[in-house]
Amino acid sequence: MKTLADSLFAELDQVVLIDSHSHINPHQPASKDLADLLGYHYYTELAHSSGMLRSDIEEPNLESREKVRRLFGFLGHIDNTVQWSWFLELAQELFGFQGDVINESNWQDVYELALARMNESTWEEQVLKKSKVEKVFLTNDFDDPLEGFDTNRYIPCLRTDDLVFHLTNETVQTRLSRSTGHAIDTTKSLRDSIGVLFERFVSKQARACAISLPPWFQPVKHNDSSPRLSEALQQVLKAGIQADDESKRMLSEWVFWTITEFAEHFKLPFDLMIGVNRKVYPNGVFQGQDLYDSRISLIQYQELLNAFPTVTFPISVLASVTNQELVDYAWIFPNVVTHGHWWYSNTPNFIKHDLKARIEAIPRNKQIGYYSDAYKLEFILPKFRMYKRILATTLAEDFCVARRWSEARAVELGSQILRGNVETIFKVH
Amino acid sequence: MKTLADSLFAELDQVVLIDSHSHINPHQPASKDLADLLGYHYYTELAHSSGMLRSDIEEPNLESREKVRRLFGFLGHIDNTVQWSWFLELAQELFGFQGDVINESNWQDVYELALARMNESTWEEQVLKKSKVEKVFLTNDFDDPLEGFDTNRYIPCLRTDDLVFHLTNETVQTRLSRSTGHAIDTTKSLRDSIGVLFERFVSKQARACAISLPPWFQPVKHNDSSPRLSEALQQVLKAGIQADDESKRMLSEWVFWTITEFAEHFKLPFDLMIGVNRKVYPNGVFQGQDLYDSRISLIQYQELLNAFPTVTFPISVLASVTNQELVDYAWIFPNVVTHGHWWYSNTPNFIKHDLKARIEAIPRNKQIGYYSDAYKLEFILPKFRMYKRILATTLAEDFCVARRWSEARAVELGSQILRGNVETIFKVH
Amino acid sequence: MKTLADSLFAELDQVVLIDSHSHINPHQPASKDLADLLGYHYYTELAHSSGMLRSDIEEPNLESREKVRRLFGFLGHIDNTVQWSWFLELAQELFGFQGDVINESNWQDVYELALARMNESTWEEQVLKKSKVEKVFLTNDFDDPLEGFDTNRYIPCLRTDDLVFHLTNETVQTRLSRSTGHAIDTTKSLRDSIGVLFERFVSKQARACAISLPPWFQPVKHNDSSPRLSEALQQVLKAGIQADDESKRMLSEWVFWTITEFAEHFKLPFDLMIGVNRKVYPNGVFQGQDLYDSRISLIQYQELLNAFPTVTFPISVLASVTNQELVDYAWIFPNVVTHGHWWYSNTPNFIKHDLKARIEAIPRNKQIGYYSDAYKLEFILPKFRMYKRILATTLAEDFCVARRWSEARAVELGSQILRGNVETIFKVH
Repeated sequence: MKTLADSLFAELDQVVLIDSHSHINPHQPASKDLADLLGYHYYTELAHSSGMLRSDIEEPNLESREKVRRLFGFLGHIDNTVQWSWFLELAQELFGFQGDVINESNWQDVYELALARMNESTWEEQVLKKSKVEKVFLTNDFDDPLEGFDTNRYIPCLRTDDLVFHLTNETVQTRLSRSTGHAIDTTKSLRDSIGVLFERFVSKQARACAISLPPWFQPVKHNDSSPRLSEALQQVLKAGIQADDESKRMLSEWVFWTITEFAEHFKLPFDLMIGVNRKVYPNGVFQGQDLYDSRISLIQYQELLNAFPTVTFPISVLASVTNQELVDYAWIFPNVVTHGHWWYSNTPNFIKHDLKARIEAIPRNKQIGYYSDAYKLEFILPKFRMYKRILATTLAEDFCVARRWSEARAVELGSQILRGNVETIFKVH
Repeated sequence: MKTLADSLFAELDQVVLIDSHSHINPHQPASKDLADLLGYHYYTELAHSSGMLRSDIEEPNLESREKVRRLFGFLGHIDNTVQWSWFLELAQELFGFQGDVINESNWQDVYELALARMNESTWEEQVLKKSKVEKVFLTNDFDDPLEGFDTNRYIPCLRTDDLVFHLTNETVQTRLSRSTGHAIDTTKSLRDSIGVLFERFVSKQARACAISLPPWFQPVKHNDSSPRLSEALQQVLKAGIQADDESKRMLSEWVFWTITEFAEHFKLPFDLMIGVNRKVYPNGVFQGQDLYDSRISLIQYQELLNAFPTVTFPISVLASVTNQELVDYAWIFPNVVTHGHWWYSNTPNFIKHDLKARIEAIPRNKQIGYYSDAYKLEFILPKFRMYKRILATTLAEDFCVARRWSEARAVELGSQILRGNVETIFKVH
Repeated sequence: MKTLADSLFAELDQVVLIDSHSHINPHQPASKDLADLLGYHYYTELAHSSGMLRSDIEEPNLESREKVRRLFGFLGHIDNTVQWSWFLELAQELFGFQGDVINESNWQDVYELALARMNESTWEEQVLKKSKVEKVFLTNDFDDPLEGFDTNRYIPCLRTDDLVFHLTNETVQTRLSRSTGHAIDTTKSLRDSIGVLFERFVSKQARACAISLPPWFQPVKHNDSSPRLSEALQQVLKAGIQADDESKRMLSEWVFWTITEFAEHFKLPFDLMIGVNRKVYPNGVFQGQDLYDSRISLIQYQELLNAFPTVTFPISVLASVTNQELVDYAWIFPNVVTHGHWWYSNTPNFIKHDLKARIEAIPRNKQIGYYSDAYKLEFILPKFRMYKRILATTLAEDFCVARRWSEARAVELGSQILRGNVETIFKVH
């Protein structure tokens, strides 16, 4: 029996997508074998959490089949998770796998099935077509030359974490001056070098800059000419990670503010992904070490949001307990836009809770429903499907039933949230 | 097909209401035209958030029709919001508007329809009758003479924000001494002048005092005779807003505590509305500038709640993440009562979440379901209806189905939460 | 009409339980009359909150029937609560009470009915059998001799709150040295005496140690040989509760860390119950005085979780706003396990919210669904039933419907969460 939600889902599933945030490598966007897919941190960290040794996962030079074989010794412990359901759904939809279960008894069949598909020369195109994805935003290092790929399909986005938080690292300093041809020994030259990055990214069709931020961060303005700031920069250049905390924090604040000024100048939205503490579990697997402190407030961004009324800030929050603040800051501040369901909040029951709060309280032109955050193209389909199912159910319950909206009107709202707002907010068509 | 929830709603919708918190002006309780209704901050702030310039909304001497015409250039962006649905429902129920959509194409018809109704001499009575509202609590400035209206219908409530937080303002000082005939240059005279206010309000049938509180506030007792306190008062009287933070905070704490002592003496419930930061977005439209920091705990009120066991504190919290604390403080403290769903938590999915947590854990005689917080009578109907639908659904799901309660028993519980507890807690019949 | 959830509930209700946390007294596990049951703090604190005087509840030497009679003057105010529904359900299921309502008009019948059952010599066995409970974890004082009961049925658990937080109390000091035969005047002898406790508990089949922790606590390691630590110990031994805060905190931290080292050595899981402030309402009834500050983060446990990778920490959190952190720390840290729904989060709508977040994101072998926390055996049945209904509904909605799982597969997951993981994590069969 087809429900109203099923029917809405079917219509939303026809919308051609622009994925506004991913970690896709445009030089190798799709996977080359199952180890590529199951090497996604969601699987390795959950397998590790369920009892698998990190050393068994990260043994150097591990052959792909052996890695997958080892993982399947533990993946049975995570077959309840939504993360696992992504893998199952993509195997069914993209590889044509017919079963309902993939486990130790049949993984080799799936491995070969996937390999045959991935070896087809049109695999990337097939995945994009089946996933109904037209364009994908990237996450580019600041010194990425942005060459050798179609920037109309894979849209550059300047990732600024290294600049804001890792100038203490000599390698980052070197990468920055090498990439821009500027010394970075004064706030003037540092500002200029950041300007060079923006020019390059904008000339390559970048449509956003982005950053992930720890819970304690609070943007503050400092004057370029402040002696204390110059001192902080010298401290950081000299002592690196050993520099005193205040100098490091001050420099981070200034670089962040400077980047926002360039975003303003170049009319680029600045994606803020707020709330992650890095390396909370340093013995975890690769990319499986980060957690957070949910005691955070968007009030920390008050000065920033007031100072840059013309910069659009698509904001993602890590913890669902911050979602109401996000709803309300987007309700009040014209320059705050809600952006997807990030990482630890990207599971169905948190999405449902957070989406329901947003869709009934924020202007409809200020909600970007979802992005995949994927490292490989294959994950875009199941992740967006998960979201679209929840969106369809929400539209059915809270609009068609509760407010007697027509199905057509609900689909129109859903499409705007899924795609239309990505176009208008990031100016990409 | 009529559901159980529909049937419960129909019965709850018959309950004649006492609205325990509003901002109604008793001298002009109903609207005079559509600009009055759409001038409600929910519409102006959401229109602004969606892209409308503040200057287009707040242009001086703007004629009503022109203001409404301008707003409808943006209100299409907020037709998804529950706030918009309030307007649509009141247009249908109170004006007799027949359509399902009000937009740029038909707003003028609605404008004229509304105007004709509002011009009827019985409009106030009609609205109250259709909304099934018998009495409405007001929010009165401390120097309101409380004259010229029926205090049996419009119940005075002493709003104390100015006293606690704005004695730094010379105008407030002048208003206070003028209104009470007392100098306020010592803690003794300040206490006496506050006493005069209480006497006046109680003599005019006031049934509550109320205050909205910022997240950082923590009630603390100070002795009237403390030299540090006298110093703080002198500081504030002399330097106003320029007084040092500690003096300002100390005086606020003492005034708050003193007010609570008068609430105790006069047996008035003290409504605490906890959690708002004022002017977070100072360039926002009128009344559309306030937000909050959700990192707050009711533990901040521990000393107060223990010190005044005979004062009833109907408590509202701004953020849904504080709701569980509210539930549990009301569960443990005899003098804590849950009070409505306030402001940013007054949207259906937060109401649902918060109500469900309360109704199954707090004694039934300690829950006041809802108040309108309205500035104009017309909004009482759609806001209470929104709540009653959620209450009906909750009673159906969590009591009739889950606990096999009869419909009659569920209605009895719902009626107590909607009206009965307002009577017993505020002693108003 | 039997729903899918009903059918899943019926199957889950067949699972024989091991209750992994209770306060059962093994020498008198069942109640002796209705006053025993209604003396449970949930009823006395809610009756008090609804208006009953503490002195009427706690009058010395109050006869059981009179106490129950007095309580029924107020229990009508809490018949909406889930806590009340536990009592009603156990009266129906265990005593054979036939009605739907117990109130002032019929409590005496229920009193006599209950008394007759409780007087049967097999009452304890009957309750366990009807509740399908095989084993029950206890909460034992550190100096409990653990004798005179069947430790195979009633499994000892070393409760460590007194050691960590109340060594300031001379009675606790005396109990410790008397119970272990050690002086406790140096960190060395204190460590040795704690070791004696562990040896005794392990020799008596203890399967866990446990502690409840205030929101501000943050585990930190101190060296046994630190002079500052020795000073802190001397301070506490000499000044008791009057010792300076830093000394008290430092000693607490060291004792906690030392206990964790013994848990590591003896391979005992360490139950952390995080978030309670004691005596927030000191005039409340017995055990009805504790509340909390929900501003807490599991980041406070970062150092601990990293330092003890081989100690399993079954973690309970008091407030639902911490549940997402718990989910995510259990998702990332192999040694973190989710443990039940504690106290103020043990009401259906919080359980539902918290369970739904856990079951779809954490490896299935790391979730312990529920424990009763009961003081009397009779409460195990209704509390676990409440949980099993929510578990059944969640499995129906989020697995059978949303992910097309078979009923058998859903029951398998449910059974693992209900019982299987208790066996593997606590090594009890």
